Amino acid sequence: MRLATLRDGTRDGTLVVVGRDGRRFARASGVAPTLQAALDGWNRAAPLLAELAARLDAGAADPEPLDEARLGPPLPRAYEWIDGSAYLSHVRLVRQARGAEPPPTLESDPLVYQGGSGALLGPRDPLALPPGDPGLDLEAEVAVILGDVARGTAGADAAACVRLLMLANDVTLRNLVPAELAKGFGFFQSKPATAFSPFAVTPDELGGAWRGGRLHLPLRSSVLRAGGARLDSDPDAGAMHFSFFDLIAHLARTRDFCAGTILGGGTVSNDDPARGASCLAELRARETIAGGRPATPFLSVGDRVSIEMRAADGWDIFGRIDQTVVPG
Amino acid sequence: MRLATLRDGTRDGTLVVVGRDGRRFARASGVAPTLQAALDGWNRAAPLLAELAARLDAGAADPEPLDEARLGPPLPRAYEWIDGSAYLSHVRLVRQARGAEPPPTLESDPLVYQGGSGALLGPRDPLALPPGDPGLDLEAEVAVILGDVARGTAGADAAACVRLLMLANDVTLRNLVPAELAKGFGFFQSKPATAFSPFAVTPDELGGAWRGGRLHLPLRSSVLRAGGARLDSDPDAGAMHFSFFDLIAHLARTRDFCAGTILGGGTVSNDDPARGASCLAELRARETIAGGRPATPFLSVGDRVSIEMRAADGWDIFGRIDQTVVPG
Repeated sequence: MRLATLRDGTRDGTLVVVGRDGRRFARASGVAPTLQAALDGWNRAAPLLAELAARLDAGAADPEPLDEARLGPPLPRAYEWIDGSAYLSHVRLVRQARGAEPPPTLESDPLVYQGGSGALLGPRDPLALPPGDPGLDLEAEVAVILGDVARGTAGADAAACVRLLMLANDVTLRNLVPAELAKGFGFFQSKPATAFSPFAVTPDELGGAWRGGRLHLPLRSSVLRAGGARLDSDPDAGAMHFSFFDLIAHLARTRDFCAGTILGGGTVSNDDPARGASCLAELRARETIAGGRPATPFLSVGDRVSIEMRAADGWDIFGRIDQTVVPG
Repeated sequence: MRLATLRDGTRDGTLVVVGRDGRRFARASGVAPTLQAALDGWNRAAPLLAELAARLDAGAADPEPLDEARLGPPLPRAYEWIDGSAYLSHVRLVRQARGAEPPPTLESDPLVYQGGSGALLGPRDPLALPPGDPGLDLEAEVAVILGDVARGTAGADAAACVRLLMLANDVTLRNLVPAELAKGFGFFQSKPATAFSPFAVTPDELGGAWRGGRLHLPLRSSVLRAGGARLDSDPDAGAMHFSFFDLIAHLARTRDFCAGTILGGGTVSNDDPARGASCLAELRARETIAGGRPATPFLSVGDRVSIEMRAADGWDIFGRIDQTVVPG
């Protein structure tokens, strides 16, 4: 099934079930008022939500027309948002271009950072470009929403912790990164609020494309410049070095996580430059390595960013993140 | 008023108001079921909670006997937990001892890190010592719970964002820190769940001790070793270089924060070694600087950590964090 959160003026919105055609939804208030409430009692809620989804697709269940612009992020506020960096070609390119070495444990010890989770963006929310020259960039990603994860959970047991998948735009202010990381405590101001796809989807909807803790489908992102130029990319999201299960085991080494924790896989990236890049920093890194300096500018006011993923048969799985840059 | 969360088997517990004597409480379910719910609608809830507190202290309001061991942290799961490091003597000592330079912007640009907030510890919860030699340490701190904070909030406007104050034990696995920070993305496995004091207290309860975004009272912490030895400290928590208001302005530069965000001031530390240290790492740093190597061991199974703060008249403001180290 596919779940979404309808904005209704409250902090957490209203949980809805989305039809297979992506054009209709049914309110799930009879099952759980919010997605967090459904996650808090998933074993009870999930079969009821699946039943509602089946009734919706059969034409019952009081369908209402779906407008992605009325949706918030599936979790408007989450208890944790943790982002991995599991696509090593991204790490290697970005660090090489800024003259930093990848950590020697790159292939054995996952990179993760703790993000801000209390105020997340919906799929059509504007991207604020702060004054100055902060280097606004997208990062197109796949993310999972977890159930409760106990400390010490092993990768082999992690599949049962994955409740839902979605897409993310892990917005980054690139020019704030070097000084912030030099302080030694990780990202903070350089990571404004992250945006998420309209729909959060149970793993069974993905069929064989979800296997081994990786989602083996191309992630399509594009940047449409205010001037009309366009950059497209479609790297295979299955190219994670560490799977989501590996990342879950890494997280859980020293603490517990509550249901509703969001975990990202990091900027999707492939070795093949023909697949494009899921962020401008990676394009600029390739340009710097090839020609000594970057040529592609970061995002400007009026630019549009879109991120989506289609199944092998063309089905639009998560709906579309589509954000326009505004002065902010 | 003073608020607390009674454990009741649910994820968020039951909100209670604590009597001035610290021995009685009244359930606040008629006002808000949980502390997060009260924070979500603070303007409505706060006067009703204050009225309930007044009735409790007048002997009405169905008082029940308070046992701090039945309390969870005021927020068992929070939307964000962000910890500053605003006591520069701590930063300087710890970095000097590990041969790292403090950042050149130490006095102008606050150090903060994003912590895990989905599973927090209550004041009497055991401290798990993972296998190996992770270097388990306490960090005694003052923390605030914020209301909604809009992006761009200035320090001069930050006072209105502070809803409640509490104490924290920001547990750290010291021996995991160097390798984790070397990866460049900040703390993760080296920061297990943080513990909080029994009570969360409105600023008005602190009188003149809360001024300029600093809490000017000694923070008492002690480590009672399984063998009977004892280490005490009582540094002035008012010695923050950056105030909580400065930290709020720093956080809010590029994003919004929702009500219930917890912000710590960092390990309380004074220049005067006679005031002791709020973590073992700082003692070990002084020993290393003086004698070439640390002498004080980190926490072992059976050690007890306690943290509390008393007003000038001896009033126990926040109740006591009192945790015993267990194998974990």
